[in-house]
Amino acid sequence: MPTVRLLRDDELSPMARAVFDDIRATRKTDFVNDFWRALANDPATLKRTWESIRQVMAPGALDPLVKEMLYIAVSIAHGCEYCVASHTASARAKGMTAEQYLELVAVVGMAAETNRLATALQVPVDPRFRDPA
Amino acid sequence: MPTVRLLRDDELSPMARAVFDDIRATRKTDFVNDFWRALANDPATLKRTWESIRQVMAPGALDPLVKEMLYIAVSIAHGCEYCVASHTASARAKGMTAEQYLELVAVVGMAAETNRLATALQVPVDPRFRDPA
Amino acid sequence: MPTVRLLRDDELSPMARAVFDDIRATRKTDFVNDFWRALANDPATLKRTWESIRQVMAPGALDPLVKEMLYIAVSIAHGCEYCVASHTASARAKGMTAEQYLELVAVVGMAAETNRLATALQVPVDPRFRDPA
Amino acid sequence: MPTVRLLRDDELSPMARAVFDDIRATRKTDFVNDFWRALANDPATLKRTWESIRQVMAPGALDPLVKEMLYIAVSIAHGCEYCVASHTASARAKGMTAEQYLELVAVVGMAAETNRLATALQVPVDPRFRDPA
Amino acid sequence: MPTVRLLRDDELSPMARAVFDDIRATRKTDFVNDFWRALANDPATLKRTWESIRQVMAPGALDPLVKEMLYIAVSIAHGCEYCVASHTASARAKGMTAEQYLELVAVVGMAAETNRLATALQVPVDPRFRDPA
Amino acid sequence: MPTVRLLRDDELSPMARAVFDDIRATRKTDFVNDFWRALANDPATLKRTWESIRQVMAPGALDPLVKEMLYIAVSIAHGCEYCVASHTASARAKGMTAEQYLELVAVVGMAAETNRLATALQVPVDPRFRDPA
Repeated sequence: MPTVRLLRDDELSPMARAVFDDIRATRKTDFVNDFWRALANDPATLKRTWESIRQVMAPGALDPLVKEMLYIAVSIAHGCEYCVASHTASARAKGMTAEQYLELVAVVGMAAETNRLATALQVPVDPRFRDPA
Repeated sequence: MPTVRLLRDDELSPMARAVFDDIRATRKTDFVNDFWRALANDPATLKRTWESIRQVMAPGALDPLVKEMLYIAVSIAHGCEYCVASHTASARAKGMTAEQYLELVAVVGMAAETNRLATALQVPVDPRFRDPA
Repeated sequence: MPTVRLLRDDELSPMARAVFDDIRATRKTDFVNDFWRALANDPATLKRTWESIRQVMAPGALDPLVKEMLYIAVSIAHGCEYCVASHTASARAKGMTAEQYLELVAVVGMAAETNRLATALQVPVDPRFRDPA
Repeated sequence: MPTVRLLRDDELSPMARAVFDDIRATRKTDFVNDFWRALANDPATLKRTWESIRQVMAPGALDPLVKEMLYIAVSIAHGCEYCVASHTASARAKGMTAEQYLELVAVVGMAAETNRLATALQVPVDPRFRDPA
Repeated sequence: MPTVRLLRDDELSPMARAVFDDIRATRKTDFVNDFWRALANDPATLKRTWESIRQVMAPGALDPLVKEMLYIAVSIAHGCEYCVASHTASARAKGMTAEQYLELVAVVGMAAETNRLATALQVPVDPRFRDPA
Repeated sequence: MPTVRLLRDDELSPMARAVFDDIRATRKTDFVNDFWRALANDPATLKRTWESIRQVMAPGALDPLVKEMLYIAVSIAHGCEYCVASHTASARAKGMTAEQYLELVAVVGMAAETNRLATALQVPVDPRFRDPA
């Protein structure tokens, strides 16, 4: 049960409505998922968050599908069920194959294991890893 | 300061030595980083961990560089300084450009933000995201 | 589904009953939420936890509502659904407005983002931040 | 050791320089901390992050000092040493007293404990906590 | 809702079937829980994960029940509901008493609290704790 | 660098001094580690935390060494360097062998991996795991 109302289209402020219009135009679908309907209670945060995501997830030096997979990985590590479900769906919509997905999951699990091993053993960073680019 | 000794080559058990030989052969370098020198105190865990990593990080449906970037993303989310430093270095050695790295970092930050927003607002998963593959 | 039984009032040990009496008197309501009914299986932990919370959350240098908002922020970051729901309800009962709540959520999201950016980039602490009070 | 160079003022791109100018004007100090010098390697992320923080942390329904304390709480829960140090310093600069700080720390600790207790015992959310605002 | 199909016995690949046979023989029960039915979509990861768990959780210097309790503790700290539920059930099946369980939960809560206090206060490690074994 | 002063014995308030006396008597050593010297700035929190730890970590249904190992496991999962170092030292002082320690570390790593796999795949809890004790 959300802590705020999930706003219907006819409940949006003008600022929120403009963001929803842009979400629909950018994604080429009428569907707007409930994360945005929750954020719409705070139009300024809705607008800032959507514009940031649109900028960050745009094609660049990394492929949008790679970015979506990074998003899934972080969402798993943070234990966000909503985000895991929504970004896994998004990645599939962008062409992630079943094989790619299962490899992603295996990498996340492996990283979690060695992250905790390194923290447990308090291994200091090797000097040769410390050179900035 | 590590909680175990970082073993020098002349202190390795035969099982640990065989793993180090494989690390060197696989990576085509004589350098073995201190994570493995810490794990070498437990040769069975050293062998299992190295073999798992070698299997998981091998080329497959995902490019090894994409896997390395997923590893960095998880390591950041888990707050493992050692792992962030070592996998950032590895990704650069595998060809990650400065532009790719900065986009990866931006995606991780963005995901962290929306992960916490979705958890704060307790947004239920949209039914259409719930279809398994 | 809880891992322990949620105890009804007629199942409480004398020590647990005394704690429930104090919860009711302190909160001026007959309602005791299920967190305490779960903890009641371990009366010593129930008593210690309740007394600690009562002490920590009492008015002091910080307003009780500010403390409740800090509690929400930590609960989001730890991904505790129960705690997010219960402390969001508590904060509202203590007068948190919709505007305050949405600003709190925005701050938590922003902090999550820059937390992960700073960890990703391994920024060392500036010397001028290091002076103890 | 950071994973990117911490840029000096004479190394900034025009976009990064404009952000630094705004940081200095907003904070009324010539000092720009190293988080921004690291982000300056990615001027678009620097600009977006600074503008988001300025918007989120501005006075509103919550006092700027309360926002700074929420920031500290989240940073502790995420284990970000840099962020803990920098936002603790910022909160002190905004007037946080020693007593307020110690109460904040006690609340964060208490929340961490009950977060994990609730997760351990898998307590379902009480129906009365589930009413959205 | 899982992100992959939970495979029935008649849908398993030969490699996955062999792992299921070993799970059943090792645990002396026909029941195979859904974690393995999800992983069975990736037979190599299924096999690697099962063999690693079997090795790690085997009797050794630590009693299998102690290992199971450590597993619960980590699962709570990572906020994994599935893992908390399944390993709590496993520990009970291995003889964990109600009293032992409640003490485990209390220790986890206490550790969470002091973990966050130490991070908040940025206490440096005492030199005498830094001697490796 | 701590965010508060680490108090010397001659700077303690009477309440803090009494706690330090009890720490020394309970542990049968004159050494008081810096976590307590930081907390001593807030004598009420110092006293509450010490008394809680003494109660939770006392011999009971679980052996004190098992409790110390659970503490280490949680501290690793929360990424608390201070706590990992101090509780690893404490466990060794209570008799934890090198073999026990390395098995503990392997269990923590394994749990981290399957925690993230279960979260990634969103495996629902098997009905048979849901029976409360």
